[in-house]
Amino acid sequence: MTDFHGVIPPVVIARHDDGSFDEESTTKNLTRLIDAGVNGLFILGSSGEGAFVTDAERDQVVKNAISVAAGRVPVLVGCIDTQTSRVIEHIKHAEACGADGIVATAPFYALGGLAQVERHFRCLAQATTLPIFAYDIPVCVHVKLPPELLVRLGRDGVLAGVKDSSGDDVSFRFLSLLNEEAGHPLKLFTGHEVVVDGAYLSGADGSVPGLGNIDPWGYVRQWKAFTEGDWETVKKEQDRLARLMRITSVAHSVTGFGAGVGAFKQALKLQGIFASARMPEPVPQLVDDEVTSIRAILDAEGVL
Amino acid sequence: MTDFHGVIPPVVIARHDDGSFDEESTTKNLTRLIDAGVNGLFILGSSGEGAFVTDAERDQVVKNAISVAAGRVPVLVGCIDTQTSRVIEHIKHAEACGADGIVATAPFYALGGLAQVERHFRCLAQATTLPIFAYDIPVCVHVKLPPELLVRLGRDGVLAGVKDSSGDDVSFRFLSLLNEEAGHPLKLFTGHEVVVDGAYLSGADGSVPGLGNIDPWGYVRQWKAFTEGDWETVKKEQDRLARLMRITSVAHSVTGFGAGVGAFKQALKLQGIFASARMPEPVPQLVDDEVTSIRAILDAEGVL
Amino acid sequence: MTDFHGVIPPVVIARHDDGSFDEESTTKNLTRLIDAGVNGLFILGSSGEGAFVTDAERDQVVKNAISVAAGRVPVLVGCIDTQTSRVIEHIKHAEACGADGIVATAPFYALGGLAQVERHFRCLAQATTLPIFAYDIPVCVHVKLPPELLVRLGRDGVLAGVKDSSGDDVSFRFLSLLNEEAGHPLKLFTGHEVVVDGAYLSGADGSVPGLGNIDPWGYVRQWKAFTEGDWETVKKEQDRLARLMRITSVAHSVTGFGAGVGAFKQALKLQGIFASARMPEPVPQLVDDEVTSIRAILDAEGVL
Amino acid sequence: MTDFHGVIPPVVIARHDDGSFDEESTTKNLTRLIDAGVNGLFILGSSGEGAFVTDAERDQVVKNAISVAAGRVPVLVGCIDTQTSRVIEHIKHAEACGADGIVATAPFYALGGLAQVERHFRCLAQATTLPIFAYDIPVCVHVKLPPELLVRLGRDGVLAGVKDSSGDDVSFRFLSLLNEEAGHPLKLFTGHEVVVDGAYLSGADGSVPGLGNIDPWGYVRQWKAFTEGDWETVKKEQDRLARLMRITSVAHSVTGFGAGVGAFKQALKLQGIFASARMPEPVPQLVDDEVTSIRAILDAEGVL
Repeated sequence: MTDFHGVIPPVVIARHDDGSFDEESTTKNLTRLIDAGVNGLFILGSSGEGAFVTDAERDQVVKNAISVAAGRVPVLVGCIDTQTSRVIEHIKHAEACGADGIVATAPFYALGGLAQVERHFRCLAQATTLPIFAYDIPVCVHVKLPPELLVRLGRDGVLAGVKDSSGDDVSFRFLSLLNEEAGHPLKLFTGHEVVVDGAYLSGADGSVPGLGNIDPWGYVRQWKAFTEGDWETVKKEQDRLARLMRITSVAHSVTGFGAGVGAFKQALKLQGIFASARMPEPVPQLVDDEVTSIRAILDAEGVL
Repeated sequence: MTDFHGVIPPVVIARHDDGSFDEESTTKNLTRLIDAGVNGLFILGSSGEGAFVTDAERDQVVKNAISVAAGRVPVLVGCIDTQTSRVIEHIKHAEACGADGIVATAPFYALGGLAQVERHFRCLAQATTLPIFAYDIPVCVHVKLPPELLVRLGRDGVLAGVKDSSGDDVSFRFLSLLNEEAGHPLKLFTGHEVVVDGAYLSGADGSVPGLGNIDPWGYVRQWKAFTEGDWETVKKEQDRLARLMRITSVAHSVTGFGAGVGAFKQALKLQGIFASARMPEPVPQLVDDEVTSIRAILDAEGVL
Repeated sequence: MTDFHGVIPPVVIARHDDGSFDEESTTKNLTRLIDAGVNGLFILGSSGEGAFVTDAERDQVVKNAISVAAGRVPVLVGCIDTQTSRVIEHIKHAEACGADGIVATAPFYALGGLAQVERHFRCLAQATTLPIFAYDIPVCVHVKLPPELLVRLGRDGVLAGVKDSSGDDVSFRFLSLLNEEAGHPLKLFTGHEVVVDGAYLSGADGSVPGLGNIDPWGYVRQWKAFTEGDWETVKKEQDRLARLMRITSVAHSVTGFGAGVGAFKQALKLQGIFASARMPEPVPQLVDDEVTSIRAILDAEGVL
Repeated sequence: MTDFHGVIPPVVIARHDDGSFDEESTTKNLTRLIDAGVNGLFILGSSGEGAFVTDAERDQVVKNAISVAAGRVPVLVGCIDTQTSRVIEHIKHAEACGADGIVATAPFYALGGLAQVERHFRCLAQATTLPIFAYDIPVCVHVKLPPELLVRLGRDGVLAGVKDSSGDDVSFRFLSLLNEEAGHPLKLFTGHEVVVDGAYLSGADGSVPGLGNIDPWGYVRQWKAFTEGDWETVKKEQDRLARLMRITSVAHSVTGFGAGVGAFKQALKLQGIFASARMPEPVPQLVDDEVTSIRAILDAEGVL
């Protein structure tokens, strides 16, 4: 199995002004990430419009990323959908396209309990030979995955790892301890761009930072410093990246996905990677003064 | 346009023991509902596994229901999915199959604000000529649709009505008042089985009771009594239906969808309508002592 | 024991411009309520600044209300505080002042489970001979009191009734059914001003409407119509009172308590009952254009 | 003004078996903390029963702690109550007793907005000359204090610092950045026992760990290592303390405060510091097999 570790950015995808998938711009982003030295790519995550794409778009995005990666780095495919059977359809598609692993959340929309969450992941594992990463993102799924459940699924070979976007660093520390005591069956990744340093202290195997689309070099340097035990550099890079992350706080015209991924798209356009900052419906693009604020932050942090 | 009113049950669908769609059992349920005098059918709602079906199953469920209804009652199709483009795909499918209207929630999973919710519904309306009902179900979608937004979309011809499963009777009263003052552009339906009487007092045009699958006659009698101003009967039927609704509270092995729709499926099996109480993955069926409790309640309320 | 039933408004208290308790204005309000025919008074509830008053103010408010009531109607005293021992101190004070009953919430701030909620109410009952009403207000307390728990405490003589401000009409129906089957140990009151009619259909013994401070006559007429089975009048009064309740939705300068009770105080000032609309710190008064909107609504509904 | 920094444990207080305040046991705990080298004491916080004590108990707890500290370390007093006027009464009491600073949350129970939260803290500052620490604990207060608000109050001299128990490490990083850019007006403390290392990386000035009652030496060693830039020791101590923190996860008989502080009290009893593990009503003590689990953890981590 692929050894997943290090910096695996959730890839932001580009759209043309008419809303259709922009393969050329997306390829430029993928190529820049690989050239910067990231350790993997995660497509169709929350930042990667996994909840927005139609099946046809999904096919385009997955095939393009795997083609661009060309085996240089592993490609994880987000299979985000409401319930088990739908997720399995996305998994089978990813597998057929040649993905190296998949990322799936607990079921959502319909309400259930943790026993069903566990059964869901076991069903997914039976449907594929690909490594499965559990995506813990309660702000979207409205369920928090408990450490005990995750490590049990790791020990049973159901899960290969966890992408933690729970915002719960206390739980992450307990997850890391429990995983260590179980022989480290799970690879643990944090999705929180501004506290990757704390996650490394807690025992993370890597990070999945959306901001890595804008500054992959910073996260790669931070990872290298971490592997060398150079905590001062880890912290220094983190402080800089935290200041850069403020591009996601400038929005006044929109909140949530539109503010965060909207800022990433505008930054990628300002950096000359994306031709358009077009968002998927029903999300509008950020407006002019917001773009001005983003430009100033990129400039101040040296990534324009 | 169809005149939507009265009792429009969210149809529970049957599955074979292997999990595949059971058309024969589902047809028996649909036929019984129509024979009992319901005023419409709502398929692929939350109770109707709208969040569980694959596209292939969706096709089977929609075509079967429209075929069985055969124009005797209108058929509303739930188009429940994460974001705009996916919902539009389901709408176009429903339209092609001959649906009489569609029901859609606000976008979910990715976070946004009310401006995007409004834009979402406007995008849906541009994509179809079918009447659109907004499905207000914050327990699943984690957004509450405000009365002002709904009535504005009604006045603009975007929405034809609202299915309210918000559990917020205060908001429903304000919605009803505002709708009345605007000339009643929206048909208002409540999804709360045990307080339909209160919703009628508040000005509802009808109800969408999941329990109507088990006792359609009670809801039909209650609707008739309401149209005749016979509030004593409206209340009396409601008290009996509320006691019957306790079948959804017997579960100890599972919570949420599995407890509620799980109880409906077991009741339909006990009534001889469904061949199996099979649930969609990852939801288990209710266990034996839970079924015993359900049988006792059906018996006590005279619908076994 | 006092027979609690009918309309028991949560009394809004007046403050002088310097923030101190205004006994004269509060007395005018109390007197008007009694003259209008209400069936009881509930002081120091959420609307009555139960969470704002110092112990010295509590003493003033309780003694004044009991003195003004002079046995004409029973006086319930809100004993709202974080945990058991503090609530008991307020109960003993109320008892010493001659209150007819007390109203208490579940404990809040520190987290616990339902077993502790039950133990809390049992501790309160051991500390007093006064009838205790459980105040179910999850929006403030962040706990929902389950019907089974409440009826068990009713049967055991711990609770005399429930003031339901949970906004959960489904749960209220189940509470009413269960209470009936247990022999009606609990007197059930709704706190939701705009759906009192639905609560009466569900089996409520009365209402505790904050808006009753502004239009006690409407709620008294509605109660009378209910006792006579005249549902058309019950609904008609309710629709009018719901329109009047819109005074609590005009605020743009503040939300929550400041918008709701702030509107009540401004209305009482416009009606000539209060000398000032002063709010307790840190809540500001509503501003001029908000007052203008309130005046227009009072005028339209004939209570200016 | 006192220079607040380092380890300032929220002091757990002892009660006799009859529930009354146990001054002798509490004094033993206070003395052990000071002897272990902590940098301050925080009494009547959430762990310190700030939401449970009567005014009489408050007086006992405050006077005892200040007397035992005798100026060797500063004493912060929690003034936790629902609204402004009540909090001010507690502040004036603390000031009269000789406290070195006070800790206060946003108002709770009654709902409001951030403008009122800000006004609340400004009102508190006008009422005292003591330094005020904002206590950010949304799990109890149901409001998250935004970094911008906190730093503005710091710059204006209203707040001296923040005790962060928000569980939101992303927000804490942004708070730290903003505070730094403003010239560090606020002293920042984390309340999360198992991720103090990450908070130090983020720029915290110290920690307020409940677990510090059980193992003050570990937190003191960690603080020293941090001040010397020895991150390996910081992390190593943290991993050990995280394992020790599992005493708060053994409970099955109770949740929340009873599980966490309940475990601390049992541990203090097992360590010979407390005579009784008595909890305040309505919280029961942990049961025998839970105590056995706690003993095993204390033993394994070398603090029995």
